[in-house]
Amino acid sequence: MKIARIEHGDRLDYAATAERGFHLIDGDIFGKFQVTGEFVPEDAAVLAAPVDPPQIVAIGRNYAGHAAETGSEVPDAPLVFIKTLNTIADPGQPILLPKMAPGEVDYEAELAIVIGKEAKQVPPHETDEYILGYTCANDISARDCQLRKDGQWARGKCFDTFAPLGPWIQTSMDPDSVAIRSELNGKIMQDSNTSNMLFNCSYLVSYVSRCMTLYPGSVILTGTPPGVGEGRSPKVFLRNGDTVTISISGIGELTNPVKMEK
Amino acid sequence: MKIARIEHGDRLDYAATAERGFHLIDGDIFGKFQVTGEFVPEDAAVLAAPVDPPQIVAIGRNYAGHAAETGSEVPDAPLVFIKTLNTIADPGQPILLPKMAPGEVDYEAELAIVIGKEAKQVPPHETDEYILGYTCANDISARDCQLRKDGQWARGKCFDTFAPLGPWIQTSMDPDSVAIRSELNGKIMQDSNTSNMLFNCSYLVSYVSRCMTLYPGSVILTGTPPGVGEGRSPKVFLRNGDTVTISISGIGELTNPVKMEK
Repeated sequence: MKIARIEHGDRLDYAATAERGFHLIDGDIFGKFQVTGEFVPEDAAVLAAPVDPPQIVAIGRNYAGHAAETGSEVPDAPLVFIKTLNTIADPGQPILLPKMAPGEVDYEAELAIVIGKEAKQVPPHETDEYILGYTCANDISARDCQLRKDGQWARGKCFDTFAPLGPWIQTSMDPDSVAIRSELNGKIMQDSNTSNMLFNCSYLVSYVSRCMTLYPGSVILTGTPPGVGEGRSPKVFLRNGDTVTISISGIGELTNPVKMEK
Repeated sequence: MKIARIEHGDRLDYAATAERGFHLIDGDIFGKFQVTGEFVPEDAAVLAAPVDPPQIVAIGRNYAGHAAETGSEVPDAPLVFIKTLNTIADPGQPILLPKMAPGEVDYEAELAIVIGKEAKQVPPHETDEYILGYTCANDISARDCQLRKDGQWARGKCFDTFAPLGPWIQTSMDPDSVAIRSELNGKIMQDSNTSNMLFNCSYLVSYVSRCMTLYPGSVILTGTPPGVGEGRSPKVFLRNGDTVTISISGIGELTNPVKMEK
């Protein structure tokens, strides 16, 4: 099932995708729920980020090719960093080039895990029951802040709109071998497969749950494959008017325009 | 006024401190509220962390003496890092030595700013109206993860219970010249004054609001003075059965025992 969150009229509801629209969901997507017969046609709905996460945990350098293009070693354990909630952006919502650091903003296609129930100290072979599903994420980074100014990645990763999520949560898929891609203004920039992750989704959920309690709706961003703007020669950064699309096979496409912050 | 959050019976309420107890607050502490005549005696109330923050933004190396004791340069801008929500602990709640990294857990006395209303791009001279008040924080760190293993500080700063907050929010004080202290098992370990901060509270709120939208209840931890366990010779780390107290003049004391995580 694909669970979307849609704005329709003055309401914001969870809904299952259907042909040319959505069927509203009744209940709690993290508990008991059912898909109703109430239909909202696609032209009456606007997609929102499919979840309001209490935590966004991200993993750095989880594809060897990306570690290499940034001149980094591959880590011997998942490299954890955090994104704050102000970073969430809806499908179609502009990614803002922050006034404080507009010049070196970069895209990163990532598979996002959505946690379904409270998870702490979960063994890798039991993580399935703690995962609600998967969505696409764009882990936006201000590379100057992240890599050249602060030492810590927090500021460069946490500007407003720096975590577009969507278009919906795919609840039934094998996350370990799906194609993942980013396009900038229609040109393919990243083109890989989640089978290239150094630490797969089960391992990551288990590892993060050994660090911290994860709550229903918490999101884990699983790292990005090679091809980011920072790794190119010459480097490519996002500019006002650009469009970025993240696509993951089995889930769908997440597209966001890019704008200067006012 | 000192605004506490208290558990009494099966309720969790905001309340103003009073002699030998609390007067319950009616309304929204981030909007309109009033102190009622309804009194809860102190022996019928248990203090909770005074806020459930949507974001916890922390500042590293904001006292020159602490930068020096960890062998670091003083930063030329606030060094931002993030703590996740699972880190919140109530006054009196045990700080857990995490199973994953129990050996090098350290205390840090910090003044915490509690944001009162949504703040974005706020100039330093206007920050007062965005600040609800101040409380004590203990920015617990697993030094092995933070400083010797991960490069990024996120894992070492984000284990469960790694951000005790309390005992309450002091809404009327000058945060720029108050005594700040930590004690470990009754021995003074840190003894400084917030006047030693490199970047003061107004500057920090302004700076962070230029990075990200802050929401009502968001917390900014303003850095720790020298005297942490990592900076001592020999190093001092928290052990099962220890007790740590953070005190800030004008606010109060925040005490937490230390336990091994099960």
